[in-house]
Amino acid sequence: MNFICTKNDLLQAIQINIKAISSKPQMPILSGIYIHAKNDILKIETTDYDIGIICKITADIKEEGTLVLPGKYFADVIKTLPGEEIEIASNSEQNTVTIKSNTAKFNLLSMASSEFPKIKKLESNNNISIKSNVLIDLIKKTSFACATEMMRPVFTGCLFDLNNAEITMAATNTHRLAVKKEIMDDNKTNITAKLIIPAKILNDLSTLLASDIPTDVDIIYSHNQISFSYDNVYIVSRLIEGQFPDYNNVIPPSFSSSALIKTRELQSAIDRVALISRSNQYNIITLNFDTNNLLLSSNNPEIGKAEENINIKLNGQPISIAFNARYILDMLKYINTEDITFSFNTETSPASIKAVGDDLFIYVVTPVRKAI
Amino acid sequence: MNFICTKNDLLQAIQINIKAISSKPQMPILSGIYIHAKNDILKIETTDYDIGIICKITADIKEEGTLVLPGKYFADVIKTLPGEEIEIASNSEQNTVTIKSNTAKFNLLSMASSEFPKIKKLESNNNISIKSNVLIDLIKKTSFACATEMMRPVFTGCLFDLNNAEITMAATNTHRLAVKKEIMDDNKTNITAKLIIPAKILNDLSTLLASDIPTDVDIIYSHNQISFSYDNVYIVSRLIEGQFPDYNNVIPPSFSSSALIKTRELQSAIDRVALISRSNQYNIITLNFDTNNLLLSSNNPEIGKAEENINIKLNGQPISIAFNARYILDMLKYINTEDITFSFNTETSPASIKAVGDDLFIYVVTPVRKAI
Repeated sequence: MNFICTKNDLLQAIQINIKAISSKPQMPILSGIYIHAKNDILKIETTDYDIGIICKITADIKEEGTLVLPGKYFADVIKTLPGEEIEIASNSEQNTVTIKSNTAKFNLLSMASSEFPKIKKLESNNNISIKSNVLIDLIKKTSFACATEMMRPVFTGCLFDLNNAEITMAATNTHRLAVKKEIMDDNKTNITAKLIIPAKILNDLSTLLASDIPTDVDIIYSHNQISFSYDNVYIVSRLIEGQFPDYNNVIPPSFSSSALIKTRELQSAIDRVALISRSNQYNIITLNFDTNNLLLSSNNPEIGKAEENINIKLNGQPISIAFNARYILDMLKYINTEDITFSFNTETSPASIKAVGDDLFIYVVTPVRKAI
Repeated sequence: MNFICTKNDLLQAIQINIKAISSKPQMPILSGIYIHAKNDILKIETTDYDIGIICKITADIKEEGTLVLPGKYFADVIKTLPGEEIEIASNSEQNTVTIKSNTAKFNLLSMASSEFPKIKKLESNNNISIKSNVLIDLIKKTSFACATEMMRPVFTGCLFDLNNAEITMAATNTHRLAVKKEIMDDNKTNITAKLIIPAKILNDLSTLLASDIPTDVDIIYSHNQISFSYDNVYIVSRLIEGQFPDYNNVIPPSFSSSALIKTRELQSAIDRVALISRSNQYNIITLNFDTNNLLLSSNNPEIGKAEENINIKLNGQPISIAFNARYILDMLKYINTEDITFSFNTETSPASIKAVGDDLFIYVVTPVRKAI
């Protein structure tokens, strides 16, 4: 194998591919980056069995072939190369690969390309297309609410609920629930599916897609896999098996009281008040809603107390209700509207936070018992 | 105690003071920040016994007094306060301190101020004054060469060698030596002293002093302590006891060969070549000096090989000599001249690197045995 490509193209691909290399690969070959050179296209593959990534870039291919290089070293070498062009040639007798760029020359030992589990493209008639900025929004506003521990796998993923023109993403760790909907323009009316996608791949995807120019993401899914294709990138992931709770049942149908609050004022007040409670396991802060005032407070017998007052407009009865501060802060981070509504029934029943101006996003959080 | 001060002043002071709070304080009171309010001046003190810091700021003091607050919490609270002004008042009966700023109010439990080991100012006639930018340069070009493990304490400090108008800072870990001199303008001719200052306090000091406007740093020293005063800051540190090796004996008196090399070309070539050797304990790279060419190479049986050629001008005999790449990179980072000279005698005797244009800075590094 022998080809010349630009450093920019190769580096960009490798930085995407590296996301499918586990820090503790199940088998040595999975620490490798597989390169297939044919018809002036390089196909670069990585996989950890849970996900697989293929990036394609153009190259001036003088001799076709395949090789696998140690991923971490290959990435570091490419990153530091001094020239704009890179020449890569394999020497199959010595099992080495020569990488040249400007004044620099590397000889890396190659891995056995026959051992690399090449990625099978997912084939299915189940497919939708979604704009990258819409997908990012769905992910950002829900995936933070997932559970991080693996005790119950379904809670480490986001439910991707396709219901004709309506796409819903939902995530919960059983103490809180985030639900974001999108209405699709093109109105395909015959799609229904409920897929649980690992939060990790969604978070990686939202990072990779983050760019000023929205692109189309083509999604294909089967009963146990889902793939995302955009530009020169193909990502396939396993789905999480299991039954996701019916999120519509978790959202209270109505609230007796509701407060209108400035998003950033609430966020910075909780930031401060939670300083005192953060060393406690549940990071409990108490919210005292009154007609025009919200008193936030926390108490830590070993440190002291904090309180803060902010202006609000309450519609309903005054209430005192306690929460894990982390759960509210996590959510406010992703709100980009000026105001939110905080709605509740009793001090023990689930409350909700909604961004004023985004009726398709709802967050439900369960109160905790008040600190003494 | 009761006073009002600006958030900016207090925060700036606390961020300096926090450097004397150990992450594992020897006694609980040492995790505290001591504040003394008198005559419209706040004196803010912290210490870990090794070093002590006093910052002074102005305040509108309504009631004089002293208090000690838990350092980490106090710092975090001040950092997040919403207003430009802060009011702090102690309630001695309840052992609490109220901190108010705009909408926020904190009640922190105070610590017993009588237990705080107040810092004694160092008094001595041994003193010099030095511009902050000169002191930073002395520190930056030497302290990186110290040993980090505490096996032999003298090597965890920099020698501060005062010899009339000449100030020298030297540091070594026995495998390398960095020596930076400064000639002082004001020509005090009757000062000689050799002090070993802990590298940690010097590094903290160079960070604190880093500002666009140079300031005067007044240094006072005794046989076992040294203090630095500048602006509103006073820092006192223990000195390290022991005998620092005679650095003049370590610097070879002459070299048989010397190469002129572009600093940044050498730095980025070593950066790349060292990628292959970094997983080895000694990170060995080999430098082959020839008349107009330097071939840098490394070899790692498990990964592969790297080599790179750069243009140089060699004055003397060609040589092949091996080094720990880390030791050369550490030093090149602090060189801001375009060229360096790399000088050597044999492949087993110490070599030197000097910045062309700075005759008062020399770095000596011992070669390692070549990789097979």
